[in-house]
Amino acid sequence: MSEIIFRKIAVIGLGLIGSSLVRVVKEAKLADEISVTDTNEDVRAKAVRLGLGDRIAATAREAVEDADLVVLAVPVGAMEVVAKEISPALKPGAVVIDTGSTKGSVMRDVRPHLPDETHFVPTHPIAGTEYSGPEAGFSTLFRDRYWIVLPEDNPPEVVERVRVFLAGTGALVEDMTVEYHDRVLAITSHLPHLIAYTIVGTAFDFEQQIRNDVIRFSASGFRDFTRIAASDPVMWRDVFLNNSDAVLEMLGRFNEDLSYLQRAIRWKEGEKLEELFSRTREIRNRIKDIGQLD
Amino acid sequence: MSEIIFRKIAVIGLGLIGSSLVRVVKEAKLADEISVTDTNEDVRAKAVRLGLGDRIAATAREAVEDADLVVLAVPVGAMEVVAKEISPALKPGAVVIDTGSTKGSVMRDVRPHLPDETHFVPTHPIAGTEYSGPEAGFSTLFRDRYWIVLPEDNPPEVVERVRVFLAGTGALVEDMTVEYHDRVLAITSHLPHLIAYTIVGTAFDFEQQIRNDVIRFSASGFRDFTRIAASDPVMWRDVFLNNSDAVLEMLGRFNEDLSYLQRAIRWKEGEKLEELFSRTREIRNRIKDIGQLD
Repeated sequence: MSEIIFRKIAVIGLGLIGSSLVRVVKEAKLADEISVTDTNEDVRAKAVRLGLGDRIAATAREAVEDADLVVLAVPVGAMEVVAKEISPALKPGAVVIDTGSTKGSVMRDVRPHLPDETHFVPTHPIAGTEYSGPEAGFSTLFRDRYWIVLPEDNPPEVVERVRVFLAGTGALVEDMTVEYHDRVLAITSHLPHLIAYTIVGTAFDFEQQIRNDVIRFSASGFRDFTRIAASDPVMWRDVFLNNSDAVLEMLGRFNEDLSYLQRAIRWKEGEKLEELFSRTREIRNRIKDIGQLD
Repeated sequence: MSEIIFRKIAVIGLGLIGSSLVRVVKEAKLADEISVTDTNEDVRAKAVRLGLGDRIAATAREAVEDADLVVLAVPVGAMEVVAKEISPALKPGAVVIDTGSTKGSVMRDVRPHLPDETHFVPTHPIAGTEYSGPEAGFSTLFRDRYWIVLPEDNPPEVVERVRVFLAGTGALVEDMTVEYHDRVLAITSHLPHLIAYTIVGTAFDFEQQIRNDVIRFSASGFRDFTRIAASDPVMWRDVFLNNSDAVLEMLGRFNEDLSYLQRAIRWKEGEKLEELFSRTREIRNRIKDIGQLD
Protein backbone atom coordinates (compact mmCIF):
# COMPACT_ATOMS: atom_id res chain seq x y z
CA MET A 1 0.00 0.00 0.00
CA SER A 2 1.50 3.31 -1.08
CA GLU A 3 1.31 6.37 1.11
CA ILE A 4 -0.49 9.38 -0.41
CA ILE A 5 2.09 12.04 -1.21
CA PHE A 6 -0.11 14.43 -3.18
CA ARG A 7 -3.77 14.55 -2.21
CA LYS A 8 -5.05 16.07 -5.41
CA ILE A 9 -3.42 15.47 -8.78
CA ALA A 10 -4.07 17.09 -12.16
CA VAL A 11 -2.94 15.37 -15.37
CA ILE A 12 -2.77 17.57 -18.47
CA GLY A 13 -2.72 15.52 -21.66
CA LEU A 14 -4.27 12.07 -21.98
CA GLY A 15 -2.02 10.31 -24.45
CA LEU A 16 -0.25 7.05 -23.76
CA ILE A 17 1.76 8.45 -20.83
CA GLY A 18 -0.90 10.65 -19.24
CA SER A 19 -3.66 8.05 -19.45
CA SER A 20 -1.37 5.31 -18.12
CA LEU A 21 -0.45 7.52 -15.17
CA VAL A 22 -4.10 8.21 -14.40
CA ARG A 23 -4.79 4.47 -14.46
CA VAL A 24 -1.96 3.54 -12.10
CA VAL A 25 -2.72 6.44 -9.71
CA LYS A 26 -6.25 5.11 -9.42
CA GLU A 27 -5.29 1.45 -9.18
CA ALA A 28 -2.50 1.98 -6.63
CA LYS A 29 -4.50 4.69 -4.80
CA LEU A 30 -1.66 7.22 -5.14
CA ALA A 31 -4.04 10.21 -4.68
CA ASP A 32 -7.47 11.04 -3.28
CA GLU A 33 -8.61 12.86 -6.37
CA ILE A 34 -7.48 13.21 -9.99
CA SER A 35 -8.65 15.84 -12.43
CA VAL A 36 -7.68 15.41 -16.04
CA THR A 37 -7.92 17.32 -19.29
CA ASP A 38 -6.81 17.33 -22.91
CA THR A 39 -7.05 20.08 -25.53
CA ASN A 40 -8.67 17.61 -27.90
CA GLU A 41 -12.43 17.34 -27.37
CA ASP A 42 -12.56 13.77 -28.76
CA VAL A 43 -9.93 12.72 -26.27
CA ARG A 44 -11.93 14.25 -23.41
CA ALA A 45 -15.00 12.35 -24.61
CA LYS A 46 -12.99 9.13 -24.67
CA ALA A 47 -11.74 9.89 -21.16
CA VAL A 48 -15.36 10.02 -20.00
CA ARG A 49 -16.12 6.67 -21.65
CA LEU A 50 -12.93 5.10 -20.24
CA GLY A 51 -13.61 6.50 -16.77
CA LEU A 52 -10.23 8.27 -16.67
CA GLY A 53 -10.03 10.63 -13.70
CA ASP A 54 -12.56 11.84 -11.14
CA ARG A 55 -13.17 15.03 -13.02
CA ILE A 56 -12.64 15.83 -16.68
CA ALA A 57 -12.01 19.56 -16.97
CA ALA A 58 -12.58 21.52 -20.17
CA THR A 59 -9.31 23.44 -19.83
CA ALA A 60 -5.91 22.96 -18.24
CA ARG A 61 -6.52 26.04 -16.09
CA GLU A 62 -9.64 24.48 -14.57
CA ALA A 63 -7.94 21.12 -14.15
CA VAL A 64 -5.11 22.47 -12.00
CA GLU A 65 -7.28 24.34 -9.50
CA ASP A 66 -6.43 23.25 -5.97
CA ALA A 67 -4.03 20.54 -7.27
CA ASP A 68 -1.03 19.57 -5.11
CA LEU A 69 0.68 17.95 -8.09
CA VAL A 70 0.28 18.91 -11.73
CA VAL A 71 1.61 16.55 -14.41
CA LEU A 72 2.27 18.00 -17.85
CA ALA A 73 1.98 15.03 -20.22
CA VAL A 74 1.77 16.94 -23.49
CA PRO A 75 4.19 16.97 -26.47
CA VAL A 76 7.24 19.06 -25.56
CA GLY A 77 6.29 21.65 -28.19
CA ALA A 78 3.08 22.38 -26.26
CA MET A 79 4.70 22.81 -22.83
CA GLU A 80 5.13 26.58 -22.99
CA VAL A 81 1.52 27.29 -23.91
CA VAL A 82 0.27 25.02 -21.14
CA ALA A 83 2.66 26.55 -18.57
CA LYS A 84 1.40 30.04 -19.38
CA GLU A 85 -2.21 28.92 -19.22
CA ILE A 86 -2.07 27.17 -15.85
CA SER A 87 0.22 29.65 -14.11
CA PRO A 88 -2.49 31.97 -12.67
CA ALA A 89 -4.53 29.03 -11.36
CA LEU A 90 -1.78 27.15 -9.52
CA LYS A 91 -2.09 26.96 -5.77
CA PRO A 92 0.93 28.25 -3.78
CA GLY A 93 3.31 25.38 -3.02
CA ALA A 94 1.99 23.27 -5.89
CA VAL A 95 4.49 20.91 -7.49
CA VAL A 96 4.53 20.74 -11.30
CA ILE A 97 6.27 17.91 -13.15
CA ASP A 98 6.41 17.09 -16.84
CA THR A 99 6.91 13.79 -18.68
CA GLY A 100 8.54 15.13 -21.86
CA SER A 101 11.39 13.44 -23.71
CA THR A 102 13.59 16.57 -23.88
CA LYS A 103 14.58 18.36 -20.69
CA GLY A 104 16.59 21.43 -21.72
CA SER A 105 13.55 22.63 -23.63
CA VAL A 106 11.11 22.26 -20.73
CA MET A 107 13.46 24.11 -18.38
CA ARG A 108 13.44 26.90 -20.95
CA ASP A 109 9.72 26.74 -21.80
CA VAL A 110 8.03 25.95 -18.48
CA ARG A 111 9.98 27.19 -15.45
CA PRO A 112 10.01 30.94 -16.31
CA HIS A 113 6.22 31.06 -16.63
CA LEU A 114 5.34 29.49 -13.28
CA PRO A 115 4.83 31.51 -10.07
CA ASP A 116 7.83 31.67 -7.72
CA GLU A 117 5.93 29.96 -4.92
CA THR A 118 5.48 26.76 -7.00
CA HIS A 119 8.04 24.07 -7.83
CA PHE A 120 8.88 22.65 -11.22
CA VAL A 121 10.63 19.26 -11.30
CA PRO A 122 11.28 17.91 -14.82
CA THR A 123 10.89 14.12 -15.14
CA HIS A 124 10.96 11.57 -17.93
CA PRO A 125 9.52 8.05 -17.84
CA ILE A 126 11.53 5.71 -20.10
CA ALA A 127 8.49 3.76 -21.12
CA GLY A 128 6.27 3.66 -24.13
CA THR A 129 4.85 1.63 -26.97
CA GLU A 130 4.20 2.47 -30.60
CA TYR A 131 0.57 3.18 -29.75
CA SER A 132 -0.79 6.54 -28.69
CA GLY A 133 -3.98 8.08 -27.32
CA PRO A 134 -6.04 7.48 -24.17
CA GLU A 135 -7.09 3.92 -25.15
CA ALA A 136 -3.44 2.90 -25.55
CA GLY A 137 -2.59 3.51 -21.89
CA PHE A 138 -2.36 0.77 -19.27
CA SER A 139 -1.61 0.83 -15.57
CA THR A 140 1.56 -1.30 -15.71
CA LEU A 141 3.33 0.78 -18.37
CA PHE A 142 5.89 2.13 -15.88
CA ARG A 143 6.50 -1.06 -13.91
CA ASP A 144 10.25 -1.88 -13.72
CA ARG A 145 11.00 0.90 -16.21
CA TYR A 146 13.23 3.82 -15.37
CA TRP A 147 11.65 7.18 -14.52
CA ILE A 148 14.26 9.91 -14.58
CA VAL A 149 14.01 12.87 -12.21
CA LEU A 150 15.99 16.07 -12.80
CA PRO A 151 16.28 17.77 -9.40
CA GLU A 152 17.80 21.04 -10.71
CA ASP A 153 17.69 23.69 -7.94
CA ASN A 154 14.52 22.47 -6.25
CA PRO A 155 14.41 21.97 -2.45
CA PRO A 156 15.54 18.37 -1.72
CA GLU A 157 12.31 17.57 0.16
CA VAL A 158 10.22 18.53 -2.88
CA VAL A 159 12.32 16.34 -5.15
CA GLU A 160 12.04 13.49 -2.66
CA ARG A 161 8.23 13.74 -2.64
CA VAL A 162 8.27 13.49 -6.42
CA ARG A 163 10.58 10.46 -6.29
CA VAL A 164 8.36 8.64 -3.79
CA PHE A 165 5.23 9.43 -5.80
CA LEU A 166 6.80 8.14 -9.03
CA ALA A 167 8.11 5.00 -7.33
CA GLY A 168 4.46 4.28 -6.48
CA THR A 169 3.82 3.64 -10.19
CA GLY A 170 6.28 0.73 -10.06
CA ALA A 171 9.01 2.68 -11.82
CA LEU A 172 12.73 2.66 -10.96
CA VAL A 173 13.49 6.29 -10.13
CA GLU A 174 16.89 7.74 -11.13
CA ASP A 175 18.37 11.23 -10.94
CA MET A 176 20.10 12.96 -13.86
CA THR A 177 21.15 16.43 -14.91
CA VAL A 178 19.36 18.14 -17.79
CA GLU A 179 22.32 18.27 -20.14
CA TYR A 180 23.36 14.66 -19.53
CA HIS A 181 19.77 13.47 -19.97
CA ASP A 182 19.46 15.15 -23.33
CA ARG A 183 22.68 13.56 -24.58
CA VAL A 184 21.89 10.04 -23.33
CA LEU A 185 18.37 10.16 -24.75
CA ALA A 186 19.65 11.52 -28.05
CA ILE A 187 21.63 8.32 -28.57
CA THR A 188 19.29 5.77 -26.91
CA SER A 189 16.01 7.11 -28.18
CA HIS A 190 15.99 10.12 -30.49
CA LEU A 191 18.58 8.91 -33.00
CA PRO A 192 17.08 5.37 -33.20
CA HIS A 193 13.68 6.91 -33.91
CA LEU A 194 15.11 9.23 -36.56
CA ILE A 195 16.88 6.33 -38.27
CA ALA A 196 13.79 4.14 -38.15
CA TYR A 197 11.59 6.90 -39.58
CA THR A 198 14.18 7.45 -42.32
CA ILE A 199 14.52 3.84 -43.44
CA VAL A 200 10.78 3.22 -43.42
CA GLY A 201 10.39 6.41 -45.45
CA THR A 202 13.08 5.27 -47.89
CA ALA A 203 11.16 2.02 -48.43
CA PHE A 204 7.88 3.91 -48.82
CA ASP A 205 9.26 5.86 -51.77
CA PHE A 206 9.93 2.80 -53.93
CA GLU A 207 7.65 1.94 -56.79
CA GLN A 208 4.49 0.01 -55.88
CA GLN A 209 5.70 -3.57 -56.42
CA ILE A 210 8.85 -3.33 -54.38
CA ARG A 211 6.96 -1.43 -51.67
CA ASN A 212 4.46 -4.28 -51.40
CA ASP A 213 7.25 -6.81 -51.18
CA VAL A 214 9.04 -4.76 -48.53
CA ILE A 215 5.88 -5.12 -46.48
CA ARG A 216 5.52 -8.85 -47.18
CA PHE A 217 9.13 -9.68 -46.41
CA SER A 218 9.44 -7.30 -43.48
CA ALA A 219 10.17 -10.15 -41.06
CA SER A 220 13.79 -10.08 -42.23
CA GLY A 221 14.70 -7.06 -40.07
CA PHE A 222 12.67 -4.17 -41.38
CA ARG A 223 9.68 -4.96 -39.17
CA ASP A 224 11.42 -3.78 -35.99
CA PHE A 225 12.01 -0.42 -37.62
CA THR A 226 8.37 -0.08 -38.63
CA ARG A 227 7.32 -0.51 -35.01
CA ILE A 228 9.49 2.40 -33.94
CA ALA A 229 8.45 4.43 -36.99
CA ALA A 230 4.79 4.02 -36.03
CA SER A 231 5.26 6.24 -32.96
CA ASP A 232 3.26 9.42 -32.46
CA PRO A 233 4.27 11.93 -35.21
CA VAL A 234 3.57 15.14 -33.28
CA MET A 235 5.37 14.01 -30.16
CA TRP A 236 8.41 13.05 -32.21
CA ARG A 237 8.40 16.17 -34.37
CA ASP A 238 8.61 18.12 -31.11
CA VAL A 239 11.40 15.94 -29.74
CA PHE A 240 13.62 16.64 -32.75
CA LEU A 241 12.86 20.36 -32.76
CA ASN A 242 13.58 20.58 -29.02
CA ASN A 243 16.69 18.46 -28.71
CA SER A 244 18.24 19.39 -32.03
CA ASP A 245 21.76 20.13 -30.75
CA ALA A 246 22.26 16.75 -29.10
CA VAL A 247 20.52 14.89 -31.94
CA LEU A 248 22.69 16.59 -34.57
CA GLU A 249 25.80 15.76 -32.56
CA MET A 250 24.85 12.07 -32.35
CA LEU A 251 23.88 12.06 -36.01
CA GLY A 252 27.33 13.37 -36.88
CA ARG A 253 28.97 10.47 -35.04
CA PHE A 254 26.55 7.99 -36.59
CA ASN A 255 27.24 9.29 -40.11
CA GLU A 256 30.99 8.95 -39.64
CA ASP A 257 30.58 5.37 -38.47
CA LEU A 258 28.21 4.54 -41.31
CA SER A 259 30.62 5.97 -43.89
CA TYR A 260 33.35 3.78 -42.45
CA LEU A 261 31.19 0.68 -42.95
CA GLN A 262 30.05 1.84 -46.38
CA ARG A 263 33.67 2.12 -47.44
CA ALA A 264 34.44 -1.31 -45.96
CA ILE A 265 31.60 -2.82 -48.01
CA ARG A 266 32.72 -1.09 -51.21
CA TRP A 267 36.32 -2.26 -50.76
CA LYS A 268 35.27 -5.69 -49.46
CA GLU A 269 37.15 -5.32 -46.17
CA GLY A 270 35.48 -8.23 -44.41
CA GLU A 271 37.61 -8.14 -41.28
CA LYS A 272 36.47 -4.59 -40.43
CA LEU A 273 32.83 -5.64 -40.74
CA GLU A 274 33.24 -8.78 -38.68
CA GLU A 275 35.14 -6.94 -35.95
CA LEU A 276 32.34 -4.41 -35.45
CA PHE A 277 29.57 -7.02 -35.73
CA SER A 278 31.25 -9.04 -32.97
CA ARG A 279 31.59 -6.05 -30.63
CA THR A 280 27.94 -5.03 -30.95
CA ARG A 281 26.82 -8.44 -29.68
CA GLU A 282 28.33 -7.59 -26.29
CA ILE A 283 26.00 -4.65 -25.73
CA ARG A 284 22.98 -6.90 -26.18
CA ASN A 285 24.36 -9.35 -23.65
CA ARG A 286 24.84 -6.55 -21.13
CA ILE A 287 21.25 -5.33 -21.55
CA LYS A 288 20.17 -8.90 -20.87
CA ASP A 289 22.39 -9.01 -17.77
CA ILE A 290 20.71 -5.98 -16.21
CA GLY A 291 17.20 -7.33 -16.83
CA GLN A 292 16.02 -4.65 -19.25
CA LEU A 293 14.97 -7.01 -22.03
CA ASP A 294 11.23 -7.51 -22.34
CA MET B 1 0.73 -35.77 -43.27
CA SER B 2 3.30 -34.59 -45.78
CA GLU B 3 4.31 -36.76 -48.69
CA ILE B 4 8.00 -37.65 -48.91
CA ILE B 5 9.49 -35.75 -51.84
CA PHE B 6 13.16 -36.49 -51.21
CA ARG B 7 13.97 -39.81 -49.57
CA LYS B 8 17.41 -38.91 -48.33
CA ILE B 9 18.41 -35.39 -47.35
CA ALA B 10 21.82 -33.95 -46.49
CA VAL B 11 22.07 -30.69 -44.54
CA ILE B 12 25.44 -28.92 -44.66
CA GLY B 13 25.81 -26.37 -41.86
CA LEU B 14 24.06 -26.67 -38.50
CA GLY B 15 23.47 -23.08 -37.53
CA LEU B 16 20.05 -21.61 -36.73
CA ILE B 17 18.64 -22.36 -40.19
CA GLY B 18 20.22 -25.75 -40.81
CA SER B 19 19.43 -27.13 -37.38
CA SER B 20 15.85 -25.84 -37.52
CA LEU B 21 15.38 -27.52 -40.89
CA VAL B 22 16.71 -30.83 -39.54
CA ARG B 23 14.27 -30.60 -36.64
CA VAL B 24 11.21 -29.92 -38.78
CA VAL B 25 12.17 -32.57 -41.35
CA LYS B 26 12.27 -35.10 -38.53
CA GLU B 27 9.13 -33.87 -36.80
CA ALA B 28 7.04 -33.63 -39.95
CA LYS B 29 8.62 -36.79 -41.42
CA LEU B 30 9.66 -34.99 -44.61
CA ALA B 31 12.39 -37.56 -45.41
CA ASP B 32 13.36 -41.15 -44.58
CA GLU B 33 16.92 -40.24 -43.67
CA ILE B 34 18.93 -37.12 -42.90
CA SER B 35 22.67 -36.85 -42.82
CA VAL B 36 24.18 -33.67 -41.45
CA THR B 37 27.56 -32.07 -41.06
CA ASP B 38 29.32 -28.88 -40.06
CA THR B 39 32.95 -27.81 -40.53
CA ASN B 40 33.12 -26.96 -36.83
CA GLU B 41 33.93 -30.00 -34.69
CA ASP B 42 32.21 -28.52 -31.60
CA VAL B 43 29.06 -28.07 -33.61
CA ARG B 44 29.18 -31.68 -34.78
CA ALA B 45 29.58 -32.78 -31.14
CA LYS B 46 26.57 -30.66 -30.17
CA ALA B 47 24.60 -32.22 -33.03
CA VAL B 48 25.29 -35.65 -31.53
CA ARG B 49 24.11 -34.48 -28.10
CA LEU B 50 21.02 -32.81 -29.57
CA GLY B 51 20.19 -35.84 -31.72
CA LEU B 52 20.25 -33.80 -34.92
CA GLY B 53 20.14 -36.04 -37.98
CA ASP B 54 20.37 -39.80 -38.46
CA ARG B 55 24.04 -39.60 -39.35
CA ILE B 56 26.59 -36.94 -38.51
CA ALA B 57 29.24 -36.98 -41.21
CA ALA B 58 32.76 -35.64 -40.69
CA THR B 59 32.80 -33.86 -44.06
CA ALA B 60 30.32 -32.35 -46.48
CA ARG B 61 31.49 -34.78 -49.14
CA GLU B 62 30.56 -37.76 -46.98
CA ALA B 63 27.27 -36.18 -45.96
CA VAL B 64 25.97 -35.79 -49.52
CA GLU B 65 26.62 -39.38 -50.63
CA ASP B 66 23.44 -40.87 -52.03
CA ALA B 67 21.40 -37.78 -51.05
CA ASP B 68 18.37 -36.85 -53.17
CA LEU B 69 18.36 -33.33 -51.74
CA VAL B 70 21.36 -31.41 -50.47
CA VAL B 71 20.75 -28.23 -48.44
CA LEU B 72 23.63 -25.73 -48.21
CA ALA B 73 22.96 -23.83 -44.96
CA VAL B 74 26.36 -22.17 -44.60
CA PRO B 75 27.31 -18.45 -44.67
CA VAL B 76 27.22 -17.22 -48.28
CA GLY B 77 30.97 -16.65 -48.20
CA ALA B 78 31.49 -20.40 -47.69
CA MET B 79 29.19 -21.57 -50.51
CA GLU B 80 31.88 -21.86 -53.19
CA VAL B 81 34.21 -24.02 -51.11
CA VAL B 82 31.36 -26.34 -50.16
CA ALA B 83 30.10 -26.58 -53.75
CA LYS B 84 33.56 -27.61 -54.96
CA GLU B 85 33.92 -30.13 -52.16
CA ILE B 86 30.60 -31.92 -52.64
CA SER B 87 30.58 -31.87 -56.43
CA PRO B 88 32.35 -35.22 -57.04
CA ALA B 89 30.16 -37.01 -54.49
CA LEU B 90 26.75 -35.87 -55.72
CA LYS B 91 24.49 -38.54 -57.15
CA PRO B 92 23.19 -37.90 -60.70
CA GLY B 93 19.82 -36.14 -60.56
CA ALA B 94 20.45 -34.82 -57.05
CA VAL B 95 18.81 -31.51 -56.23
CA VAL B 96 20.95 -28.94 -54.38
CA ILE B 97 19.37 -25.93 -52.68
CA ASP B 98 20.91 -23.23 -50.50
CA THR B 99 19.42 -21.03 -47.77
CA GLY B 100 21.70 -18.00 -48.14
CA SER B 101 20.57 -14.38 -47.85
CA THR B 102 22.17 -13.25 -51.13
CA LYS B 103 21.24 -14.96 -54.37
CA GLY B 104 23.36 -13.38 -57.11
CA SER B 105 26.42 -14.57 -55.23
CA VAL B 106 25.31 -18.20 -54.90
CA MET B 107 24.43 -18.36 -58.60
CA ARG B 108 27.98 -17.22 -59.26
CA ASP B 109 29.67 -19.33 -56.55
CA VAL B 110 27.74 -22.62 -56.60
CA ARG B 111 26.14 -23.40 -59.96
CA PRO B 112 29.37 -23.53 -62.05
CA HIS B 113 30.97 -26.08 -59.76
CA LEU B 114 28.17 -28.64 -59.73
CA PRO B 115 27.90 -31.52 -62.26
CA ASP B 116 25.57 -30.92 -65.23
CA GLU B 117 23.35 -33.85 -64.27
CA THR B 118 22.43 -32.20 -60.93
CA HIS B 119 20.06 -29.28 -60.27
CA PHE B 120 20.75 -26.17 -58.24
CA VAL B 121 17.71 -24.23 -56.99
CA PRO B 122 18.59 -21.17 -54.86
CA THR B 123 16.16 -20.54 -51.99
CA HIS B 124 15.94 -18.16 -49.03
CA PRO B 125 13.84 -18.62 -45.89
CA ILE B 126 12.78 -15.22 -44.49
CA ALA B 127 13.04 -16.40 -40.92
CA GLY B 128 15.53 -15.99 -38.15
CA THR B 129 16.26 -14.77 -34.67
CA GLU B 130 19.24 -12.99 -33.16
CA TYR B 131 20.54 -16.34 -31.89
CA SER B 132 22.81 -18.66 -33.80
CA GLY B 133 24.22 -22.15 -33.57
CA PRO B 134 22.64 -25.64 -33.40
CA GLU B 135 21.02 -25.08 -29.97
CA ALA B 136 19.24 -21.99 -31.27
CA GLY B 137 17.21 -23.88 -33.87
CA PHE B 138 13.58 -24.94 -33.40
CA SER B 139 11.17 -26.86 -35.59
CA THR B 140 8.62 -24.05 -35.99
CA LEU B 141 11.07 -21.39 -37.18
CA PHE B 142 9.67 -21.43 -40.73
CA ARG B 143 5.98 -21.69 -39.89
CA ASP B 144 3.96 -18.96 -41.64
CA ARG B 145 7.19 -17.29 -42.78
CA TYR B 146 8.02 -16.77 -46.42
CA TRP B 147 10.50 -19.09 -48.10
CA ILE B 148 11.60 -17.66 -51.41
CA VAL B 149 12.43 -19.96 -54.34
CA LEU B 150 14.42 -18.72 -57.34
CA PRO B 151 13.53 -21.08 -60.22
CA GLU B 152 16.13 -19.71 -62.67
CA ASP B 153 16.45 -22.11 -65.65
CA ASN B 154 15.69 -25.32 -63.77
CA PRO B 155 13.11 -27.81 -65.11
CA PRO B 156 9.68 -26.80 -63.74
CA GLU B 157 9.11 -30.24 -62.16
CA VAL B 158 12.35 -29.95 -60.17
CA VAL B 159 11.37 -26.50 -58.89
CA GLU B 160 7.92 -27.82 -58.01
CA ARG B 161 9.43 -30.66 -55.92
CA VAL B 162 11.48 -28.09 -54.03
CA ARG B 163 8.39 -25.92 -53.46
CA VAL B 164 6.35 -28.84 -52.11
CA PHE B 165 9.21 -29.94 -49.84
CA LEU B 166 9.66 -26.42 -48.42
CA ALA B 167 5.91 -26.01 -47.90
CA GLY B 168 6.16 -29.09 -45.67
CA THR B 169 8.11 -26.98 -43.15
CA GLY B 170 5.07 -24.73 -42.72
CA ALA B 171 6.58 -21.94 -44.81
CA LEU B 172 4.74 -19.83 -47.40
CA VAL B 173 6.62 -20.49 -50.63
CA GLU B 174 7.06 -17.62 -53.12
CA ASP B 175 8.96 -17.31 -56.41
CA MET B 176 11.33 -14.45 -57.22
CA THR B 177 14.11 -13.64 -59.65
CA VAL B 178 17.67 -13.36 -58.40
CA GLU B 179 18.13 -9.67 -59.13
CA TYR B 180 14.79 -8.66 -57.65
CA HIS B 181 15.43 -10.77 -54.53
CA ASP B 182 18.75 -9.08 -53.90
CA ARG B 183 17.21 -5.60 -54.17
CA VAL B 184 14.20 -6.36 -51.95
CA LEU B 185 16.36 -7.99 -49.31
CA ALA B 186 18.86 -5.14 -49.44
CA ILE B 187 16.15 -2.77 -48.25
CA THR B 188 14.14 -5.08 -45.95
CA SER B 189 17.02 -6.87 -44.31
CA HIS B 190 20.58 -5.94 -45.21
CA LEU B 191 20.27 -2.18 -44.79
CA PRO B 192 18.35 -2.47 -41.47
CA HIS B 193 21.08 -4.76 -40.15
CA LEU B 194 23.82 -2.41 -41.31
CA ILE B 195 22.11 0.56 -39.66
CA ALA B 196 21.54 -1.35 -36.44
CA TYR B 197 25.16 -2.51 -36.30
CA THR B 198 26.27 1.07 -36.92
CA ILE B 199 24.18 2.73 -34.23
CA VAL B 200 25.03 0.13 -31.60
CA GLY B 201 28.69 0.59 -32.53
CA THR B 202 28.35 4.37 -32.24
CA ALA B 203 26.99 3.94 -28.72
CA PHE B 204 29.75 1.48 -27.86
CA ASP B 205 32.40 4.07 -28.59
CA PHE B 206 31.20 6.55 -25.96
CA GLU B 207 33.10 6.95 -22.72
CA GLN B 208 32.26 4.40 -20.00
CA GLN B 209 29.56 6.30 -18.08
CA ILE B 210 27.42 7.21 -21.06
CA ARG B 211 27.86 3.69 -22.45
CA ASN B 212 26.51 2.21 -19.21
CA ASP B 213 23.56 4.56 -19.30
CA VAL B 214 22.86 3.73 -22.93
CA ILE B 215 22.50 0.14 -21.76
CA ARG B 216 20.33 1.03 -18.77
CA PHE B 217 18.01 3.30 -20.71
CA SER B 218 17.89 1.14 -23.81
CA ALA B 219 14.13 0.61 -23.48
CA SER B 220 13.61 3.98 -25.13
CA GLY B 221 14.20 2.65 -28.66
CA PHE B 222 17.80 1.50 -28.76
CA ARG B 223 16.97 -1.98 -27.51
CA ASP B 224 15.34 -3.05 -30.77
CA PHE B 225 18.54 -2.16 -32.60
CA THR B 226 20.67 -4.19 -30.21
CA ARG B 227 18.58 -7.26 -30.98
CA ILE B 228 19.30 -6.94 -34.68
CA ALA B 229 22.94 -6.06 -34.01
CA ALA B 230 23.37 -9.28 -32.01
CA SER B 231 22.99 -11.38 -35.19
CA ASP B 232 25.71 -13.76 -36.35
CA PRO B 233 28.80 -11.68 -37.32
CA VAL B 234 30.22 -14.05 -39.95
CA MET B 235 26.92 -14.59 -41.70
CA TRP B 236 26.38 -10.84 -41.90
CA ARG B 237 29.92 -10.02 -42.97
CA ASP B 238 29.35 -12.39 -45.88
CA VAL B 239 25.97 -10.85 -46.71
CA PHE B 240 27.46 -7.38 -47.10
CA LEU B 241 30.44 -8.62 -49.10
CA ASN B 242 28.13 -10.61 -51.40
CA ASN B 243 25.32 -8.15 -51.99
CA SER B 244 27.42 -5.01 -51.98
CA ASP B 245 25.97 -3.43 -55.13
CA ALA B 246 22.35 -3.53 -53.94
CA VAL B 247 23.31 -2.57 -50.38
CA LEU B 248 25.32 0.42 -51.56
CA GLU B 249 22.44 1.52 -53.79
CA MET B 250 19.98 1.37 -50.87
CA LEU B 251 22.46 3.08 -48.60
CA GLY B 252 22.71 5.94 -51.10
CA ARG B 253 18.95 6.44 -51.00
CA PHE B 254 18.90 6.17 -47.22
CA ASN B 255 21.69 8.75 -46.86
CA GLU B 256 19.83 11.23 -49.07
CA ASP B 257 16.70 10.82 -47.00
CA LEU B 258 18.61 11.13 -43.74
CA SER B 259 20.32 14.33 -44.92
CA TYR B 260 16.91 15.76 -45.75
CA LEU B 261 15.72 15.10 -42.19
CA GLN B 262 18.98 16.32 -40.69
CA ARG B 263 18.53 19.61 -42.53
CA ALA B 264 14.89 19.82 -41.40
CA ILE B 265 16.01 19.40 -37.78
CA ARG B 266 18.76 22.00 -38.11
CA TRP B 267 16.38 24.54 -39.66
CA LYS B 268 13.50 23.55 -37.38
CA GLU B 269 11.17 22.67 -40.25
CA GLY B 270 8.60 20.83 -38.15
CA GLU B 271 6.06 20.29 -40.91
CA LYS B 272 8.54 18.22 -42.98
CA LEU B 273 9.24 15.98 -40.01
CA GLU B 274 5.60 15.52 -39.11
CA GLU B 275 4.65 14.74 -42.71
CA LEU B 276 7.19 11.91 -42.95
CA PHE B 277 6.43 10.56 -39.47
CA SER B 278 2.74 10.32 -40.39
CA ARG B 279 3.42 8.47 -43.65
CA THR B 280 5.63 5.85 -42.02
CA ARG B 281 2.81 4.83 -39.70
CA GLU B 282 0.89 3.53 -42.71
CA ILE B 283 3.51 0.91 -43.53
CA ARG B 284 3.21 -0.55 -40.05
CA ASN B 285 -0.54 -0.78 -40.43
CA ARG B 286 -0.18 -2.62 -43.72
CA ILE B 287 2.22 -5.17 -42.21
CA LYS B 288 -0.39 -5.75 -39.52
CA ASP B 289 -3.09 -6.17 -42.18
CA ILE B 290 -1.22 -9.00 -43.91
CA GLY B 291 -0.59 -10.86 -40.66
CA GLN B 292 3.21 -10.61 -40.64
CA LEU B 293 3.51 -9.08 -37.17
CA ASP B 294 4.68 -11.50 -34.49
